Amino acid sequence: MDADSYARAAGSPEELAEQDRVLGRLAQVTRELMLATMTTEVDHAEVADVTAGLEALTTRLMKQATSGALGIQVAEDGAVRAHGNSVVGHRNPMAPPLQIDRYPDGKALSSFHLGPLYEGPPGLVHGGVCAMVLDQMLGEAAAAGGSPGMTGTLTVRYRRPTPLGDLSAEAWIDHVEGYKTTVQGHLADAEGVTVEAEAVMILPRWAREALDVRPRPTRFE
Amino acid sequence: MDADSYARAAGSPEELAEQDRVLGRLAQVTRELMLATMTTEVDHAEVADVTAGLEALTTRLMKQATSGALGIQVAEDGAVRAHGNSVVGHRNPMAPPLQIDRYPDGKALSSFHLGPLYEGPPGLVHGGVCAMVLDQMLGEAAAAGGSPGMTGTLTVRYRRPTPLGDLSAEAWIDHVEGYKTTVQGHLADAEGVTVEAEAVMILPRWAREALDVRPRPTRFE
Repeated sequence: MDADSYARAAGSPEELAEQDRVLGRLAQVTRELMLATMTTEVDHAEVADVTAGLEALTTRLMKQATSGALGIQVAEDGAVRAHGNSVVGHRNPMAPPLQIDRYPDGKALSSFHLGPLYEGPPGLVHGGVCAMVLDQMLGEAAAAGGSPGMTGTLTVRYRRPTPLGDLSAEAWIDHVEGYKTTVQGHLADAEGVTVEAEAVMILPRWAREALDVRPRPTRFE
Repeated sequence: MDADSYARAAGSPEELAEQDRVLGRLAQVTRELMLATMTTEVDHAEVADVTAGLEALTTRLMKQATSGALGIQVAEDGAVRAHGNSVVGHRNPMAPPLQIDRYPDGKALSSFHLGPLYEGPPGLVHGGVCAMVLDQMLGEAAAAGGSPGMTGTLTVRYRRPTPLGDLSAEAWIDHVEGYKTTVQGHLADAEGVTVEAEAVMILPRWAREALDVRPRPTRFE
């Protein structure tokens, strides 16, 4: 990975908005299908028939497709488009996706719903999914405060089980030391905090070098 | 969550095998669709038409479906079926799914492919996905060694970026102290270790109480 990984998004703001609407809808409908795939109890003949239908639709979408990952694009107005991101990606069906409010004093807040797709122990959010969401939130807080970086160390403390359902997450910069930013955060349900996290985010060397010649990147994931 | 969350799987071994085959195939085709959804470049009219087709198939699957999460089932032969699990779930389209080799001395090994769906920074596995996979692997190692538990603390150290592609993971019990099991592990690409992790797994109180009256559970997620 290097600074050139941040490709310029092709299209006017209007074209990009229309693209986001059409492809965002496809991703959302795919999320609903994922849940149906996992919870369906229709008979096996019907499952096989639906499976064949899905294969046909997949073939149609793949007639023209990028061969690699989506990467990160930057629009004309400087907006970062991380549409493939596993946690916030607008086009990534495995992403809930988290919608995050970012504050320039280095805070990030989000409310979201984690359903059956995110299960670990029965009825509970997978501990690894909690870590995944918190990693993203902590990175967002660091970036929002002007100190973006990639995760160096992540420590997650599970205070109590996190039930599947409506949740929220919060993250904030604790302190910045050169290219290292220490961030903290937590995941909560209606009763309060379930999981706490702390991370040290590090600005990669290529980004430090790039800082002299181009605008400081606003985020890395 | 309590011990009763481990429901008995209905069906003979043959019926369960057939169910796994049919529903496993549906999940796999859904994974392929997810990738197509994210990478397609066909025109907007075609995307809209495919989207309508997906909605129709989803409706067919939802005609009869469980309303909640899949939970964990135990088959007649004692085999644990965590088909909804976000990392190893056979029926969960967001799971790669990891196929894990478990050893009774408390080791777990897995080789797998993480494609564009698991992206964070451009071309790289999302740091949170690395943590998610490692949380599962560490839990599997603890369970394999006869000391299952839920994650109490998870510490993840990112040694270098993990490229999307073919990867492997390994986890092992470091030591056991009563109901606390300390496990370690790492994620690696062809060049070697990219991410290291350590966790303390804790056997929940309900499971300790249940130990007296029923077989010790073999895993929790």
